Amino acid sequence: MRIDILTVLPELLDGPLNNSILKRAQDKGLVEIAVHNLRDYTLDKHRRVDDYPFGGEAGMVMQIEPVDRAITYLKSQRDYDEVIFTSPDGELFTQPMANSLSLLQNMIILCGHYKGIDYRIREHLVTREISVGDYVLTGGELPAAIIADAVVRLLPGAIGDEQSALSDSFQDNLLAPPVYTRPADYKGWRVPDILLSGHQRKIDEWKYEQALERTRRLRPGLLKEE
Amino acid sequence: MRIDILTVLPELLDGPLNNSILKRAQDKGLVEIAVHNLRDYTLDKHRRVDDYPFGGEAGMVMQIEPVDRAITYLKSQRDYDEVIFTSPDGELFTQPMANSLSLLQNMIILCGHYKGIDYRIREHLVTREISVGDYVLTGGELPAAIIADAVVRLLPGAIGDEQSALSDSFQDNLLAPPVYTRPADYKGWRVPDILLSGHQRKIDEWKYEQALERTRRLRPGLLKEE
Repeated sequence: MRIDILTVLPELLDGPLNNSILKRAQDKGLVEIAVHNLRDYTLDKHRRVDDYPFGGEAGMVMQIEPVDRAITYLKSQRDYDEVIFTSPDGELFTQPMANSLSLLQNMIILCGHYKGIDYRIREHLVTREISVGDYVLTGGELPAAIIADAVVRLLPGAIGDEQSALSDSFQDNLLAPPVYTRPADYKGWRVPDILLSGHQRKIDEWKYEQALERTRRLRPGLLKEE
Repeated sequence: MRIDILTVLPELLDGPLNNSILKRAQDKGLVEIAVHNLRDYTLDKHRRVDDYPFGGEAGMVMQIEPVDRAITYLKSQRDYDEVIFTSPDGELFTQPMANSLSLLQNMIILCGHYKGIDYRIREHLVTREISVGDYVLTGGELPAAIIADAVVRLLPGAIGDEQSALSDSFQDNLLAPPVYTRPADYKGWRVPDILLSGHQRKIDEWKYEQALERTRRLRPGLLKEE
C-alpha cells in the first residue's frame, strides 16, 4: 500500500506517522507513506497556497492550482484508487470503512486548511470525502493521520498479534470487554474473581456477556447493524 | 486553560501540539499544554507500564499504578475539572461537547495504548470517557490531539478572525456552504456567477440556501437536533 498526504503543514505529521505501528509497518515495507508540502506545487513566488474567498466570507480559502498540480504530478507516477479529502461534512469514517480502505493499493489524502478549500477541488479532483467526526478542527492533518493509522494497523503483519486486532471493538459489532492486569488488588480495588479463576470457558462466557452488555448500554446502534 | 496529557508516546504529540493554532494559542498564553510520559511515573526499573491481561486475552494492558501516580501528582499541583480518557466506547465527541469543554479551567487527558487500560483506571480515576469516532486506533494520542485542537481553537483570541469560527460547520447546526477563491475560471471550471455579482444580499441568500441544502442532503440529523 502507498499513502500520499498533501498538506501545508508537513511537520505536524512527522510524529503521528513515524511512531509505533505506523513506523513499524513502514520499516517492514507493508506501507509507504509520503508527505508532500503543497507549497512546493505553487507557482506563486511567495509560496502562497491560499487567497480571499469570493463573496465576502471571513477566513482564507485553499487555492485549486497547487492541489491540482500536486495531484497531477502524483498521478503521472502511478494509479490511485482514491483521492480522499478530509472534511467535517464528508462520509463518517467507521471501522468497516477502515477495513475496506485497507484493501486499496494507492491513495492520496488531501488535508484541508484555513476556512476551506476551493469547492472545485472537491467537485473535480477528489473522489471521496471523509469526516472523522462531527467537530471542527484547525486542519485535515489529524484526520489524515487517523485514517492512515486505522487503515495501516489492519494490514496483515502490521500488529504483532493478529488476534489482537480481531478482538478489537467494532470488528464483531461488539465493544471490547473490560481488561485488567497486575496487581490483582490495587488499593483495595480488585480484579473480578472470575478472571483469576483459571476456568477458561467461564472466563470466555463472562467476557462475551460483558461485551454484549457494554454494547447494549453504550452503542446499541452496533447491534442493530447486524 | 491548562491541558495535561498522559501518554507513553510523548514524541508523537510534538507536531500536533506545536503547530498552527495550538502553537499560537500557547504563545499568546491562552492555554498551557503539558505532555507527561507515563514511564516517568512507574516504579518498574525497566520503566514498563504494561503487563499481560488476566484471563488470557491477546495483547498487553496498561497498568493502573503509573496512571494513578501521575494523576495523583498532577492533582497535588492544582484542581482538575475532568480526567478524560479517550476510548472507542466513550461518549461521542461532537462540536457541542467541544464548546462545553472550552469553558473548563484544567483538564487531564489520558491516552490509552496497547490492548487497553486496566479497567479500574476507568472506574476509579477517570471522570469522562470520550470517543472521537467509531473506529479503532493504535493509541489515544491522536484523539487527545483532536480534543485539544477542537477545544483550544474555540478559546477567545485563538483564531485571528472570530467570525471565522462562528461560521464554521456545526456551530449553527448547518454545514458550511461551498467556498471559492481565485482564479474565477480554472481550466473551464468556473466559480458560480452569483459570487462574482457583488450583490451581497443575494450572495448571503445563496450561501444560506447552499448550507441548508447540503445539511439536508449530508447531515439531516443536525437539523432535527434544533
